[in-house]
Amino acid sequence: MEPVERIVRHFQEELEQLKNRLLEMGGLAEEEVRLAVQGLVERDPEVIDKVLSGDEPLNALHIEIDSRCFTLLALFQPMAADLRTIVAAVKINTDLERVGDLAVNIAEAGTRYISHPPVKKLIDIPQMGDIAQSMLRDALDAFVKRDTRLAHEVLNEDDRLDSLKTQVFRDLLTYMLKDQSTVEPALDLILVSRHLERIGDHATNIAEDVIFMVSALDVRHHPPAPVED
Amino acid sequence: MEPVERIVRHFQEELEQLKNRLLEMGGLAEEEVRLAVQGLVERDPEVIDKVLSGDEPLNALHIEIDSRCFTLLALFQPMAADLRTIVAAVKINTDLERVGDLAVNIAEAGTRYISHPPVKKLIDIPQMGDIAQSMLRDALDAFVKRDTRLAHEVLNEDDRLDSLKTQVFRDLLTYMLKDQSTVEPALDLILVSRHLERIGDHATNIAEDVIFMVSALDVRHHPPAPVED
Repeated sequence: MEPVERIVRHFQEELEQLKNRLLEMGGLAEEEVRLAVQGLVERDPEVIDKVLSGDEPLNALHIEIDSRCFTLLALFQPMAADLRTIVAAVKINTDLERVGDLAVNIAEAGTRYISHPPVKKLIDIPQMGDIAQSMLRDALDAFVKRDTRLAHEVLNEDDRLDSLKTQVFRDLLTYMLKDQSTVEPALDLILVSRHLERIGDHATNIAEDVIFMVSALDVRHHPPAPVED
Repeated sequence: MEPVERIVRHFQEELEQLKNRLLEMGGLAEEEVRLAVQGLVERDPEVIDKVLSGDEPLNALHIEIDSRCFTLLALFQPMAADLRTIVAAVKINTDLERVGDLAVNIAEAGTRYISHPPVKKLIDIPQMGDIAQSMLRDALDAFVKRDTRLAHEVLNEDDRLDSLKTQVFRDLLTYMLKDQSTVEPALDLILVSRHLERIGDHATNIAEDVIFMVSALDVRHHPPAPVED
């Protein structure tokens, strides 16, 4: 085998490993979100504690992935599509780490929430949790498969999350205005809905990075151009 | 001049321009935060509207800086310290864009807030705004001057912001529990304090990137080792 060919193969193997580590990190982040929402809905402090004490593997992966990206950039000096993939990986890594932080924030609000009597049966918040998790999964899937159609679906899902957040806010405000004793726990539910919305934002960022990576097309800040005739 | 020397000089010039654009973007982001808080405190809808309609230049710079980073990586294939500087620039660029989004969030909450009678004289929130702005300024300064001491100061400032946020929360909760009519506006102030805390988090991210860039030392997720004797 020629040296150049060997280096190229080595690069593709390293890139494959990088993608696997990002998928692993995505899986961990998604699981933390799932547990945080489950602990809140089922009022289970043990489940919540798993999230509060469980961010070590995610943090270790965050550092490892960043370091893999630097190594790939420095050793192989990739161009064009490969370069865009690695820069996308750097950004996705940051997004996934923040998702882990947000799961911890949800768990913190959950701890406070279950110290009060429940405000209401939780329906919208677990639904937001499901949407946020599936957005994360799809965004990562889109990254690995270089699937821009799937990435665009993630962008659309974000609107659902946003309107649920607004609904949660209005709904809980009604409780707070009717019954003083719900103010504290309802406030925490509002914060949880904001955290879930932000998790959706991170999935959106990842989807945008995928679209840029595949097509070198920047979909951020670009409203569709008006049709002129 | 030798060709290699010419390329190197060209690279340093391009890097200088990249830094200047990031400084410019930092200045814009800081100004948006300043205006959003000012509009809220002075209950001035015109100032708030400036923020709501003013994120175009920031978004344009975001795309331009990202593209400069790609060009530098692709054309010059920098190594070691230069590589770390450009990857740091990619990350800082993302952080500054989010700061702009958060200024818009503050302005949105401000619009709702000033549609109600004031809950109280605002003292902690403008103070949080000042701290967040100075953290941003220092973090960017630390980036341009490669000043890790200044970057560490930014990390320390974040604790002040965090304890002010907790104080704002407790304080406003008291109002909400005493007087129903304050629930809606107090809720918006709580959201504003969270947005300001997150702006501080972005400044912290930038400071951590600066430390890594200069010393290749990863300060994220590393609590100081316990002293053993």
